[in-house]
Amino acid sequence: MPATPAPLELHPDRLFPADPGVRDVARRLHASVAELPVVSPHGHVPAAWLADDTPFADPTSLLVTPDHYVNRLLHAHGVELSALGVGQGPLGEQQSRAAFRTVCAHWEVFRGTPVRYWFEAQLAELFGVTVRPDATTADAVYDQVAACLAQPEFRPRALYARFGLSLLATTDDPCDDLDAHRRLSEDPTWSGRVVPTFRPDRYLEAASPTWGADLDRLAAVSGVDTGDYAGFVAALEDRRRYFRAHGAVSTDHSHPDARTDVLGPAEAARLFARGRRGEITAEEATALRRHLVSEMARMSVEDGLVMTLHPGIRRNHHTPTFEQFGADVGTDIPVGLELTDALRPLLTRYGTAEGFHLVLFTVDETVFSREIAPLAGFYPSVYAGAPWWFLDAPEAIRRYRGAVTESAGFAKTSGFIDDTRAFCSIPARHDMSRRLDAGYLATLVAEHRLTEDEALETAHDLVVANPERAFKL
Amino acid sequence: MPATPAPLELHPDRLFPADPGVRDVARRLHASVAELPVVSPHGHVPAAWLADDTPFADPTSLLVTPDHYVNRLLHAHGVELSALGVGQGPLGEQQSRAAFRTVCAHWEVFRGTPVRYWFEAQLAELFGVTVRPDATTADAVYDQVAACLAQPEFRPRALYARFGLSLLATTDDPCDDLDAHRRLSEDPTWSGRVVPTFRPDRYLEAASPTWGADLDRLAAVSGVDTGDYAGFVAALEDRRRYFRAHGAVSTDHSHPDARTDVLGPAEAARLFARGRRGEITAEEATALRRHLVSEMARMSVEDGLVMTLHPGIRRNHHTPTFEQFGADVGTDIPVGLELTDALRPLLTRYGTAEGFHLVLFTVDETVFSREIAPLAGFYPSVYAGAPWWFLDAPEAIRRYRGAVTESAGFAKTSGFIDDTRAFCSIPARHDMSRRLDAGYLATLVAEHRLTEDEALETAHDLVVANPERAFKL
Amino acid sequence: MPATPAPLELHPDRLFPADPGVRDVARRLHASVAELPVVSPHGHVPAAWLADDTPFADPTSLLVTPDHYVNRLLHAHGVELSALGVGQGPLGEQQSRAAFRTVCAHWEVFRGTPVRYWFEAQLAELFGVTVRPDATTADAVYDQVAACLAQPEFRPRALYARFGLSLLATTDDPCDDLDAHRRLSEDPTWSGRVVPTFRPDRYLEAASPTWGADLDRLAAVSGVDTGDYAGFVAALEDRRRYFRAHGAVSTDHSHPDARTDVLGPAEAARLFARGRRGEITAEEATALRRHLVSEMARMSVEDGLVMTLHPGIRRNHHTPTFEQFGADVGTDIPVGLELTDALRPLLTRYGTAEGFHLVLFTVDETVFSREIAPLAGFYPSVYAGAPWWFLDAPEAIRRYRGAVTESAGFAKTSGFIDDTRAFCSIPARHDMSRRLDAGYLATLVAEHRLTEDEALETAHDLVVANPERAFKL
Repeated sequence: MPATPAPLELHPDRLFPADPGVRDVARRLHASVAELPVVSPHGHVPAAWLADDTPFADPTSLLVTPDHYVNRLLHAHGVELSALGVGQGPLGEQQSRAAFRTVCAHWEVFRGTPVRYWFEAQLAELFGVTVRPDATTADAVYDQVAACLAQPEFRPRALYARFGLSLLATTDDPCDDLDAHRRLSEDPTWSGRVVPTFRPDRYLEAASPTWGADLDRLAAVSGVDTGDYAGFVAALEDRRRYFRAHGAVSTDHSHPDARTDVLGPAEAARLFARGRRGEITAEEATALRRHLVSEMARMSVEDGLVMTLHPGIRRNHHTPTFEQFGADVGTDIPVGLELTDALRPLLTRYGTAEGFHLVLFTVDETVFSREIAPLAGFYPSVYAGAPWWFLDAPEAIRRYRGAVTESAGFAKTSGFIDDTRAFCSIPARHDMSRRLDAGYLATLVAEHRLTEDEALETAHDLVVANPERAFKL
Repeated sequence: MPATPAPLELHPDRLFPADPGVRDVARRLHASVAELPVVSPHGHVPAAWLADDTPFADPTSLLVTPDHYVNRLLHAHGVELSALGVGQGPLGEQQSRAAFRTVCAHWEVFRGTPVRYWFEAQLAELFGVTVRPDATTADAVYDQVAACLAQPEFRPRALYARFGLSLLATTDDPCDDLDAHRRLSEDPTWSGRVVPTFRPDRYLEAASPTWGADLDRLAAVSGVDTGDYAGFVAALEDRRRYFRAHGAVSTDHSHPDARTDVLGPAEAARLFARGRRGEITAEEATALRRHLVSEMARMSVEDGLVMTLHPGIRRNHHTPTFEQFGADVGTDIPVGLELTDALRPLLTRYGTAEGFHLVLFTVDETVFSREIAPLAGFYPSVYAGAPWWFLDAPEAIRRYRGAVTESAGFAKTSGFIDDTRAFCSIPARHDMSRRLDAGYLATLVAEHRLTEDEALETAHDLVVANPERAFKL
Repeated sequence: MPATPAPLELHPDRLFPADPGVRDVARRLHASVAELPVVSPHGHVPAAWLADDTPFADPTSLLVTPDHYVNRLLHAHGVELSALGVGQGPLGEQQSRAAFRTVCAHWEVFRGTPVRYWFEAQLAELFGVTVRPDATTADAVYDQVAACLAQPEFRPRALYARFGLSLLATTDDPCDDLDAHRRLSEDPTWSGRVVPTFRPDRYLEAASPTWGADLDRLAAVSGVDTGDYAGFVAALEDRRRYFRAHGAVSTDHSHPDARTDVLGPAEAARLFARGRRGEITAEEATALRRHLVSEMARMSVEDGLVMTLHPGIRRNHHTPTFEQFGADVGTDIPVGLELTDALRPLLTRYGTAEGFHLVLFTVDETVFSREIAPLAGFYPSVYAGAPWWFLDAPEAIRRYRGAVTESAGFAKTSGFIDDTRAFCSIPARHDMSRRLDAGYLATLVAEHRLTEDEALETAHDLVVANPERAFKL
């Protein structure tokens, strides 16, 4: 251990290309957008945090426990998830501090990852930490963060303002009453914008063990009988209306594949009935789900909600971890994705429908140049979603621009989404995206593929116009 | 809108790497090949343009309507294809000008795409335009291009000479009488070289609704009865001879997959017969087509025509667009490609056959390092085709060299092909390739992986020796 | 041919990034690791070379004939494998010299490939050659290498010491008596470390024509009856113990796919019995092999041998070449790989087992960011293997770091493996890896994503700590 702790400093040129000439351009481009408001049209921060404005409890339950990016890498190095607070309920001071120490003592395993970048940005910019986390500095860092969290300027609403957020989308179950969203919208002291997102995955998977109960709850909430297919569809439509009325701008869908094969009405009704009777096979349930994803597109054409797709993840890959800790703890692993044939039924029907928007995300990079960019470069409805999850990282973001721009340009990309439940990382994530786009555009300028005035305009668009256009804000 | 239009200038260093040291080397390498003749061994310019030497009608029907690269991106931004002249027949002055205005008014959607690069290169270099296209400059740009087209030095043959073309390949139906090619070869005032390419796709797909009529026409043209399999094969061989006699150097094949499984003669004859009776299933037709692709390789071994493959495209992805406007209007989307197993039957038979050449193209980048480079790095017959279509773009071309060179070197790559129906873009496309190869080689020099004398030799080879070798020119 | 031969010089900055600022950092990072010992935990050099310490016969049979990297590219340019000594038995002086001339006369086909880099490094650093190989210099180069080989300091043990090797792993059949390893370990004059690797592929493929004889030999060597499934498993366990006792640290597995589906004991026994009777189908043999790969993991959990996977290669793609020359002569071609679903059964069982290590290699780059890095970033057992075979090349190595680091960091990567049978290329291969990692880390430093002290520590770890950790050295 060093006698003097290593300093923690955020260099103003971080993430810019190394070439001095290109870096100069990147600096100017970034400076022009660095202070713009943050639009976050897809994420997982609970609306209740802002509605209730409750102070955050402790550094670990804010920065570590809910963040599967952090947990997974430590788990890969032999740390038990329970030692990070996962599945432990509210943490005592000792437990919280011990978990934080574990994180700091493993700081070197995060080298080269965006987790380290985001975490350090939070510590330095938000909490004023000036030493690099390690085993010797862990307690001091913990204390400093804890002291901050006790201040009123670190309560959720104050942070919303400090982060420059102009919109924050949550992700919600169709049966959610959106009470927190309602309370916010009715609160005269609140001037932000927090919108729900309609995420019906579980209701579309008829072989899920909870499906019957899910549909009963859907019936109860919507007041529409979900005993037959027509009622089920009507109930979903009803909940979409409810979400729209509470500010929703988009729906989100994450299934193992992206197929959208449409069934005839009789076949859809027949499979639905089999599902309702608990008799549906896995193959039939998959066929029904693919049909229902196309139905979601139909509803989007009708009600105007933007449809977003996040497919191609094998959820809960390590079953024992899922059984012990539940979902979203870091054991989801990507699989290869196919979109061209998978989306053809949906796009043949709705790909040129007036006002329809379909934003495609992937964790399989190979589809960026091969499928997403060509689709976004022909269909007016299709937008190339920002690099997501494992790909929300400096070099992956550069590869995304390199793979998508030449076939789809800039204007058919979605703008950045942070997709995070780590509230305090939102500014660092958006700034990372702005820095990398500035660097990418600067390279185009340096290679005389774009003039600097165009690059300035494009940098601004990517932060403001693109998310507004893609998500109809 | 700016009071003063933005200037349009082609920077002499465009597309070179930004690092000053590398750029210096790239400049020297590019300068050494910039003025070399243009060899275009695969493309879609009609031979009749050169045979007839008719002046081009108007800017839109030359630069916009036939170019699906331009149309698809505008369609992605909500422009109707009909508004760009697609499917409209000859354009009136007003219609042509309106379409051109639409293109210029959307100029920003092309940022970062090669379409923009090629289009600006044509406007600046060929037509002397000095202002950037936008809504305010559209008419002036249109007028300037139109004025040029009225001059004799903008007629097809003059442009052929001005472009420095030494060979231009067309792509032709086996039943084509190649009249334009014949007229050119008999014309004592014509000193260029325009060669046909044998593209038999439709004759190999027995489930196509037009297949029977296609084979009847093939019989009529060849004078060989195509009523049975042996006759069909003989008729194709006859037409290949005809193409050879008219200068053809290669055949081209584009099917949904690249499989080449060989059938026994009886099974091939049986499936053919079922096709002739209109009874063939989709699966049987696919099996027959895969066999016939291997037959094409056999014929290439015998007659010496270079075989080129352009697989892995889902043609006419958006059926309603196809039904309204036909093929080749921008709604083709790539799919994943597999070559290692697919080509094994063909390569086991003919992969080391004396003089056989098989040039592999792909729009799925993942096969460059995984399959194409290893195949080209073992089989004497296999050449790694240049980046094609969606991949004919600056960063994709760099990725291609980065993916292919380390396993296959430079000498087993095909040299650039433009594959375009946009005649006036040919010089800009070839120059783009030369600039990017210069930049790639300059990086090798800067990293001391190649000496500059070797890089100079390689840059020259890529422009001259490689296409001559791969296409046996 | 030039009057004066081109010089052969290894530039001290070779493979470093071109940007002067980044290069400065890379130089410092590389200098700090350049002289560290070479750990080679996976390769194909015969242990007998070191046990016997026999002088190498001639330049060709040392540098050309056994190296399929060299042979395949020359074959791709029309050189017969037999002309390179492949399948020819011991070479006469004339034959050896003629083959060497052929290599030199084709020197330009290696431009841009790592083969050229490694070969030139050997010639310049090891053999003191100062002229670039070509047709005119071939004989002089040959003579110089041959003269060196006659010196005692070019015998295998002297080279082992000169290369700074601290560990060299061989790859061995489970029935191998490891006599050379034993002799080395008992030799008081030998202070190196040569360890065997357990490679049981052929014993796991029950449809192989030699399988029955293989299992009979296994029974004879282990003294365990392999007539039933239990005996077969016990015999493999016995041989693993034997390998452990002779220093083995790992097992290696290379099958067409990576699936690991587990069978019930009765079903495994049933399929095994069918295999033993020669009645097993290809599908059944595949099912049995996938089960046995999971069994290998179980054994690794029990005996501590590190499990390494090298899947996704279509071996002997060109059957006629295999029939004439046998395996490993350059006609293996990669295929697409899937790991997420394939490894799930194995990882669900053993992924978090105490002490289990699974190192994943691939020649399909697409799985680096999509599957390997996410797996290595969650499972404590999983390590991302270094870029292998076709991907052991400068730009592929950079892409590997770019694809893996952001999800898995540095500490879950295996460290470099050379996987080579080209003994003399080992130092150049490891140095290439060190140079490229130095360049990658230097870029992180230049972009302020890592401090230089961390980069220095990481560079050192990648050479020392990572292979020691991954391979439990």
